[in-house]
Amino acid sequence: MAVAVDVVVLTLAPDGGDDGVPPLTPLVLAVRRDRDPFAGNWALPGGHVGLGEGLEAAVCRVLGEAGGQPAPGPRLTAPRHLEQLATFGAPGRDPRGRVVSVSYLALLPAPPPVAAGAAWHPALDPPALAFDHRDIVAAAVARLRSKLTYSTVAYGLLGEEFTLSDLQAVYEAVQARPLDKRNFRRKVLALGLLEETGEQRRGSHRPAQLYRFPPGLVVFDDVIA
Amino acid sequence: MAVAVDVVVLTLAPDGGDDGVPPLTPLVLAVRRDRDPFAGNWALPGGHVGLGEGLEAAVCRVLGEAGGQPAPGPRLTAPRHLEQLATFGAPGRDPRGRVVSVSYLALLPAPPPVAAGAAWHPALDPPALAFDHRDIVAAAVARLRSKLTYSTVAYGLLGEEFTLSDLQAVYEAVQARPLDKRNFRRKVLALGLLEETGEQRRGSHRPAQLYRFPPGLVVFDDVIA
Repeated sequence: MAVAVDVVVLTLAPDGGDDGVPPLTPLVLAVRRDRDPFAGNWALPGGHVGLGEGLEAAVCRVLGEAGGQPAPGPRLTAPRHLEQLATFGAPGRDPRGRVVSVSYLALLPAPPPVAAGAAWHPALDPPALAFDHRDIVAAAVARLRSKLTYSTVAYGLLGEEFTLSDLQAVYEAVQARPLDKRNFRRKVLALGLLEETGEQRRGSHRPAQLYRFPPGLVVFDDVIA
Repeated sequence: MAVAVDVVVLTLAPDGGDDGVPPLTPLVLAVRRDRDPFAGNWALPGGHVGLGEGLEAAVCRVLGEAGGQPAPGPRLTAPRHLEQLATFGAPGRDPRGRVVSVSYLALLPAPPPVAAGAAWHPALDPPALAFDHRDIVAAAVARLRSKLTYSTVAYGLLGEEFTLSDLQAVYEAVQARPLDKRNFRRKVLALGLLEETGEQRRGSHRPAQLYRFPPGLVVFDDVIA
């Protein structure tokens, strides 16, 4: 039996920006397969785990292989957030034989350069993907949507400092629906988790307060007890 | 490389009931190993996954092996809630060679009969366990504690119908701390998820309203958006 890791790398990028459409769209990274099975198809970055290799070490290796030329900004090998997603082990998922895939979810605030043969695709409507990778992407999107409602996981899709409008744009993009601005701000601030940086962002609009999240993933634990 | 499943079966049972101590205590199922490595030690119910066997099929097989004589009440092979917990794959976790363990969390409302060689132990302070199984139990308890704060997962530790006192006892037992009764009831009812059954439980105390959860796991999604 073989064990592989597959990584769902999610990020956000500006979309066309039609009226009423959220200004960001979720993207997922895929690589073109150069051999069978599924030669020529898109697949998640992934690979078999070496006999003495840890699971997260294999994830780092795979992300390194999919990364492009170093450039300023986010790097594929240094996601803002990385978590184990789920393990997919249906007996028939790989035509070559039994391969159990441990999948991971990696979040980045913007798409970094990627290797030749890798590309970003719409995460909510991905192209045909090899193996059961479409199910894995769907599980990642479901996990992210759910986790946004009870944790600070949005930090993975934001820079260190952000405005409440930036934060709302992350929620709207992942949930693919507009949110009421006043209601969103009231609920987010009521959590008591956002720290004001003391700085403001100035631009074409009026100055907006900058915030940051506390370090690490925080679960909103005041809902019941 | 080998792939195994290991199952953390958690349930609740009345404890001594000293003043101020929650009236229920979390228990975890362990089986005595009859061969090396760790012969004679306690371990989670688990086993290698067969080449053509699905992961959840392996979980069912393992639970069947750990189950006791059929009796009225909960059955080990029919947990109220079952979810994949995490996959543990550190290269040195099994002295025999590389074994990647896909762990599951199973919840039952009360401890059913178990096979000879299996026994229930305190989940918050388990005995020495083989391999990295103590870490797996800790991960299960952490997942359950966290999930109680943002979902209806408590249904896995309750019967179909329950009073608010029953529900509070589940939260107190898993979180190992007393909760304010009035505050707990207010927050739980404010979620708008509990359905009144229309029946009451009568006993030595005054009659108490019975509730049920909606089917399946529901995440409290009104926290932010």
